[in-house]
Amino acid sequence: MVDKPVPVPAQAEVLIRIDAVAICATDLEIIHYGTPALMEGGPPFNRNFTSGHEYMGTVVALGEGVDEFAIGDRVTAEIHAGCGQCKRCWLGMYTCCLNHGQNYGDVKKNHRANGVTTDGGFTEYAVNHINTVIRVPDTMCDEEATLAVTADTSMYGLTELGGLVAGESVVVMGPGPIGLMAVAVAKSLGASPVILTDTRESRLKIGTSLGADHVINVKNTNVVEAVKEIAGTIGVDYVVECAGTETAINDAIHMTNRGGKICLAFLHDPATIDLSHVIKNNMYLYGIRGEGKSATHRAMAFMAEKQFDASLIHTHTFALDNLPEALRYARERVDDAIKVVVRARGAEQQLKAVSS
Amino acid sequence: MVDKPVPVPAQAEVLIRIDAVAICATDLEIIHYGTPALMEGGPPFNRNFTSGHEYMGTVVALGEGVDEFAIGDRVTAEIHAGCGQCKRCWLGMYTCCLNHGQNYGDVKKNHRANGVTTDGGFTEYAVNHINTVIRVPDTMCDEEATLAVTADTSMYGLTELGGLVAGESVVVMGPGPIGLMAVAVAKSLGASPVILTDTRESRLKIGTSLGADHVINVKNTNVVEAVKEIAGTIGVDYVVECAGTETAINDAIHMTNRGGKICLAFLHDPATIDLSHVIKNNMYLYGIRGEGKSATHRAMAFMAEKQFDASLIHTHTFALDNLPEALRYARERVDDAIKVVVRARGAEQQLKAVSS
Amino acid sequence: MVDKPVPVPAQAEVLIRIDAVAICATDLEIIHYGTPALMEGGPPFNRNFTSGHEYMGTVVALGEGVDEFAIGDRVTAEIHAGCGQCKRCWLGMYTCCLNHGQNYGDVKKNHRANGVTTDGGFTEYAVNHINTVIRVPDTMCDEEATLAVTADTSMYGLTELGGLVAGESVVVMGPGPIGLMAVAVAKSLGASPVILTDTRESRLKIGTSLGADHVINVKNTNVVEAVKEIAGTIGVDYVVECAGTETAINDAIHMTNRGGKICLAFLHDPATIDLSHVIKNNMYLYGIRGEGKSATHRAMAFMAEKQFDASLIHTHTFALDNLPEALRYARERVDDAIKVVVRARGAEQQLKAVSS
Amino acid sequence: MVDKPVPVPAQAEVLIRIDAVAICATDLEIIHYGTPALMEGGPPFNRNFTSGHEYMGTVVALGEGVDEFAIGDRVTAEIHAGCGQCKRCWLGMYTCCLNHGQNYGDVKKNHRANGVTTDGGFTEYAVNHINTVIRVPDTMCDEEATLAVTADTSMYGLTELGGLVAGESVVVMGPGPIGLMAVAVAKSLGASPVILTDTRESRLKIGTSLGADHVINVKNTNVVEAVKEIAGTIGVDYVVECAGTETAINDAIHMTNRGGKICLAFLHDPATIDLSHVIKNNMYLYGIRGEGKSATHRAMAFMAEKQFDASLIHTHTFALDNLPEALRYARERVDDAIKVVVRARGAEQQLKAVSS
Repeated sequence: MVDKPVPVPAQAEVLIRIDAVAICATDLEIIHYGTPALMEGGPPFNRNFTSGHEYMGTVVALGEGVDEFAIGDRVTAEIHAGCGQCKRCWLGMYTCCLNHGQNYGDVKKNHRANGVTTDGGFTEYAVNHINTVIRVPDTMCDEEATLAVTADTSMYGLTELGGLVAGESVVVMGPGPIGLMAVAVAKSLGASPVILTDTRESRLKIGTSLGADHVINVKNTNVVEAVKEIAGTIGVDYVVECAGTETAINDAIHMTNRGGKICLAFLHDPATIDLSHVIKNNMYLYGIRGEGKSATHRAMAFMAEKQFDASLIHTHTFALDNLPEALRYARERVDDAIKVVVRARGAEQQLKAVSS
Repeated sequence: MVDKPVPVPAQAEVLIRIDAVAICATDLEIIHYGTPALMEGGPPFNRNFTSGHEYMGTVVALGEGVDEFAIGDRVTAEIHAGCGQCKRCWLGMYTCCLNHGQNYGDVKKNHRANGVTTDGGFTEYAVNHINTVIRVPDTMCDEEATLAVTADTSMYGLTELGGLVAGESVVVMGPGPIGLMAVAVAKSLGASPVILTDTRESRLKIGTSLGADHVINVKNTNVVEAVKEIAGTIGVDYVVECAGTETAINDAIHMTNRGGKICLAFLHDPATIDLSHVIKNNMYLYGIRGEGKSATHRAMAFMAEKQFDASLIHTHTFALDNLPEALRYARERVDDAIKVVVRARGAEQQLKAVSS
Repeated sequence: MVDKPVPVPAQAEVLIRIDAVAICATDLEIIHYGTPALMEGGPPFNRNFTSGHEYMGTVVALGEGVDEFAIGDRVTAEIHAGCGQCKRCWLGMYTCCLNHGQNYGDVKKNHRANGVTTDGGFTEYAVNHINTVIRVPDTMCDEEATLAVTADTSMYGLTELGGLVAGESVVVMGPGPIGLMAVAVAKSLGASPVILTDTRESRLKIGTSLGADHVINVKNTNVVEAVKEIAGTIGVDYVVECAGTETAINDAIHMTNRGGKICLAFLHDPATIDLSHVIKNNMYLYGIRGEGKSATHRAMAFMAEKQFDASLIHTHTFALDNLPEALRYARERVDDAIKVVVRARGAEQQLKAVSS
Repeated sequence: MVDKPVPVPAQAEVLIRIDAVAICATDLEIIHYGTPALMEGGPPFNRNFTSGHEYMGTVVALGEGVDEFAIGDRVTAEIHAGCGQCKRCWLGMYTCCLNHGQNYGDVKKNHRANGVTTDGGFTEYAVNHINTVIRVPDTMCDEEATLAVTADTSMYGLTELGGLVAGESVVVMGPGPIGLMAVAVAKSLGASPVILTDTRESRLKIGTSLGADHVINVKNTNVVEAVKEIAGTIGVDYVVECAGTETAINDAIHMTNRGGKICLAFLHDPATIDLSHVIKNNMYLYGIRGEGKSATHRAMAFMAEKQFDASLIHTHTFALDNLPEALRYARERVDDAIKVVVRARGAEQQLKAVSS
């Protein structure tokens, strides 16, 4: 913990007093290895960097010209503020900003990814471009609001897969936070059936609470056959693959029908993939880096309407002073932790059980 | 060569007297291994099957209710007549027909892929659904007309990659017929620069004639670096990968910019792929099985306007009686053969040199 | 009432024993003036024609090759079976089939619109192409199932307006059956706020039950100002205009923001429209003829999940023998009738009150 | 003519020395009535305002962080720099920027439309956001480069109509600059046939030079029938309506086929429109305000490849000192003027004849 000056919002920016911040697996990677920008060949990890990118809080100051928000508004934040200057940003693909990570910590191209390339949320104040800030309804608690940015990645993936998934079959593989939110978002969009696969009964149970029509425990099971038993031998229309293993990706490919689409969210190393099957069956694979195309607004709209209860994936809350312990819970999945939230203000440690 | 009865066109079908048929690499595979449908687990190769799917000819009889065509019309044919009954076909994805190959040689689901699942073009007459038949302009010779179905796969791929490629950078890897047509179609759609890569100078030269702004001979060259030298270090917007090797696909991935898109047209076996880079950079991969979404109509429109000269890839013509020799030329690439066309009517062997 | 022979299903068709059929305003027009096809200049009304296009029933016979459905399946039916042969049908726009109404009562182009160009549902049996048939879940009663085809028009309109309406503002003008279903579908897709406008308090109340966030009684109110008071002075993102008057369409135009989109569902005569405002503000107007692009499947998916209760718009049920009285209720809106359903089997007249 | 200080480019902006500026009909309106923003209810016309929005020139200074352009680059400029802060801008719809004209002459929301809401091109220097600046190829003269922004409106319209127009039928009504460029862009995109309608033989002749397959002189002709004689009784797929009259818009509606799309570019007053036909035939109407979604980049790509010769619509050149005379030529269409270009530097008056 170091003291940093409170940043000052520029034109089209607001200053947020951070009330709560969730821990994401990417935070753990950044803390261990440096930011993704750096992993792709940048300078050594800047010890003065503040990570944390899933935060919400209260607007406490407005940059020049800002009337979209008022002081006192409760807001949650998207990660990526594209530069607004490259051709990806011109078309709403700010997650693919071509200036992302080009200039680490340097915002002369106007790009920010707080907690990834610029200072993030494990602190007291953050500056955000108004494009990245979404109002939190009064009926939503701080902890749930931090999860909008988790749900938005799932929303973005399903949007890119086609968006109009009502009545279509969707398999979600891997019930981490993104996968569980994919179940919830797919059901909100009307997908049916939604099938969740994993080895952990506890996670599958949460998937059911979030709306999964079927869950498959893949231990000792041929998951491709199990999916086809439910959805028909022709396979499913869409797969959101969040398990991030070579086996899972190949299973995804073989359970998808001709012309089907697959969203890929995680993978660390090159893997041996049956792309031949992808080509012969005219499948499309979508690498999903994070939110984009205003997906957070759509995710928040469903959350505000209580279409699904994102707080089911919030398992623990710690005070900011206890950040190291919070990170340990998240990293080691202590007590079956899914989303660990750190509260910024004077709250003592507060272990919250899964609410279902 | 066997005698078969002349088929009779049903409602919404026409009978075509075949005038010319081009040989595709898929024909060679079908002749050796059976049809793709069969390769995916169907019954053993039916000896009575007629292959050949890139044909054109003259309408000689009309099925019931057909007034879209008249007897005497010169037409060329798409391969895939979707069933019109599955959800892929409802949305123009007839190449992904979910009833394709389900019932080999059996058209009770109305699906046909002449030369692949139903009798094809190495013969005198074929029946085609009117959806698969496109008029040939008077100014286009028979041989060129057979190539519309080659150009349409490239058109379909570029359409699925986004379609609006004017002013965007496109790399085509592998100048087989599909790759060369991809160069021509990308230029017609306004892409710039279009870069073609290969090891064969003769093929690169044809690529230049078809409009490639740059060609890169990848022998002794790092193709990723060579592309970035032309298009900028950020990489290119689109790649149409037609080389079909593990190395080429990984090169394609590494030369594409964040948010870029890659079309995959060929690959035989599982391969070790850097999908991690795909995910981190929010890239999309499109497996392209063949034509679709009326792409043949769009390809033919550009060919009719002489936007590109597809006949540059037509290298040899044989009479139908000489089919075995024609197949040998195609298979062994004798005399640097690209597209070998078989003419159905009394023409003697006629070796045609590349016209550039 | 006349006796007609029971029709026989052809390839890809099923025979449906009709269990229930809802009365649509279009039915009333057809009965008075002839079918829309005829109104557009065809021959005089064919007295032997059977109208009724919002029906559901039980599959009692299968055409050749049909295994998608089984005898005994409860199903509801879309109106438009496109020809499958024109370029609109190739892309899922079967509602815009270019062969629609070209050959009244003649199906040689394979086009059918039962109850509009071919025999419909005010009878005991109907033949339907399998593309137009959707399974009814066991949990849904016959009457509610007839309303899927009402909801699908709303779903199609909202799909064409953009589809991804979660968190976007939508005004629905005119709470007839299509308008009320538009409220329900917009809420299901996550739109917020959804505002319904009309002069009838009873209808606005049903709109609230179907999810409208706000209702505006436009009697003695400037509706444009009232909408902007709720949604902000910049106006709303989308309007679904179902009132069908010149005033309503101009109001729709003036309450929509720059770049917004408007769906038009009804209008009888040429009207004086402020298209200048449409152009200056880059708005798009969508004429919605009916369902399309598989919208019925998406509407039924939400209905099956009980996302909204379509039966709220079902007000009365009559026996088929009482059809003239049922038509009178629908035409004269007796007892505030919205959807009047005719039951085919031995049921006596059964006046059902609005269930809220 | 007044002296104003040379503006200073901010972050992400460049300073352009203006070399040539074309006169647009909108300029004439602005000079007479005030800017469109003002016409919509703003304050009285600011006498200190500089109009002119179709300019090109040379980059002479760079704002902070700009490395996308270098001093000395020849560039042409789009009109609309969206705020980058509203939901339209997030998705590339910067022409529909919700902050456009909200704050006349005030750029605190970052919106600029040079020559419309902020100072424009009838001067020596202008500041442009880099998003609005496109490089001019060395092979293109200054006058032609000013026309990119004309072509881009046509490109944007055709993009919004569907984009994939190869082989589709397109009618362009009204061969003003936008209409003539619509002919050229439609042909570049492969549309066929492209039909141009007007009463002036001289303009129709230019249309033919720009690629129109057919021209129809509508004097003493029923244009709907004449179009159907060429395109078939079913009508055409797309109409780009640039005549801007009630009659023309209704003709456009009646010559379009079911499911067809119409782009509307001009209209001054409310008009009596057959929207009933639009609804019954599921047509879509697109109000096109100007460029958008990077259309200028696509238009310039085709111009750079010499797919069409935009300079055919450039008829006259004047020196900046002669601006009043240039405006008179444009306004009164002296000598059949189409595009009148004003050159900024020391060039004497130079009457250039149409080059065909």
